[in-house]
Amino acid sequence: MATARRSRLSLDERRQQLVRLGVDIFSERPYDEVSIDDIAAAAGISKGLLYHYFPSKRDFYVDVVRYSAREMVAFTELDRTLEPPARLLASLDRYLDYVESHARGYLTVLRAGIGSDPEVAAVVEHVRSQMVERTLADIPHGRVDPPAPVRIAVRGWIGFVEAASMDWLEHRGMSRDRLRDMLASQLGAALDAAKAEG
Amino acid sequence: MATARRSRLSLDERRQQLVRLGVDIFSERPYDEVSIDDIAAAAGISKGLLYHYFPSKRDFYVDVVRYSAREMVAFTELDRTLEPPARLLASLDRYLDYVESHARGYLTVLRAGIGSDPEVAAVVEHVRSQMVERTLADIPHGRVDPPAPVRIAVRGWIGFVEAASMDWLEHRGMSRDRLRDMLASQLGAALDAAKAEG
Repeated sequence: MATARRSRLSLDERRQQLVRLGVDIFSERPYDEVSIDDIAAAAGISKGLLYHYFPSKRDFYVDVVRYSAREMVAFTELDRTLEPPARLLASLDRYLDYVESHARGYLTVLRAGIGSDPEVAAVVEHVRSQMVERTLADIPHGRVDPPAPVRIAVRGWIGFVEAASMDWLEHRGMSRDRLRDMLASQLGAALDAAKAEG
Repeated sequence: MATARRSRLSLDERRQQLVRLGVDIFSERPYDEVSIDDIAAAAGISKGLLYHYFPSKRDFYVDVVRYSAREMVAFTELDRTLEPPARLLASLDRYLDYVESHARGYLTVLRAGIGSDPEVAAVVEHVRSQMVERTLADIPHGRVDPPAPVRIAVRGWIGFVEAASMDWLEHRGMSRDRLRDMLASQLGAALDAAKAEG
């Protein structure tokens, strides 16, 4: 029993090690250019053993995207020890840190390409929902459910954050701090507009 | 020669008729639920004849998305006879009119599903670029190329418009006029932030 549990743990741990390696690989090179052989070589294992952990390159990739999504959400968690304006700025700093160091993966997943895979799209949608819920939970609106204009404003803002970040990663021309300030002020403006509409 | 040109024209015209019918079909029913037989029946032609115009349902769908995208861009063209604030509001009114009357197609294309098809994704990207270029061309910035923060602000704003519109189409809770006003004020706020950053 103990042995079975131990080897099961090692299998999961080994799989997670490979997935973490995958995050690095896909942050540097496009999906189509990475072969199963490359992944096995980077991990220092045989292709056969890699297939023991993941049935296909696509399965591996989907797990990498899932892992990276969880990592990003955790990394950008709102820090409750900070006051609201600093809290948002700190979270956006970490968001931009994360997307900058995983630029290729971020762009691939948010554009079409392999990112168009339904399972990958579900991960993207899940991350968006988490970001929306987290942002809404941090806005005092005195109701269990936020008023519709507030929800629409926050959803729209997440769209702004993604689209602006993608353009910035591709073309730059603006410092990260200034982009962060623009993103933060957009949330304020969107919520003001939602209240004016409410 | 004249006959050849005439029959070529009719072929194109017939194809476009079918595509326009497809816009209606896919605005009402999801892609997966529409069969080639349904399309042929709606057009009052045989399945064999439909295949003469389009090699597959997917090809037909991609043409429908392309047509609809062109239609939306034309429909939301900025009206130069109006002054800037009214011009933007009028264009947003028409945008929301269009997405409301093509809600299912809009949501399908902007989410994953079949919208994840690379050709469909290219159409979406092209529409976005056109909307960004058009918006940028309407902002006086005294340079041939807009400053990076302005470009990022406008790209971000298009992301806001799409994400807010999708949430609104799915969950409502806000009048169209109020959403339009929120979208317009977001562009103003984004451009103000870009200037502050500039």
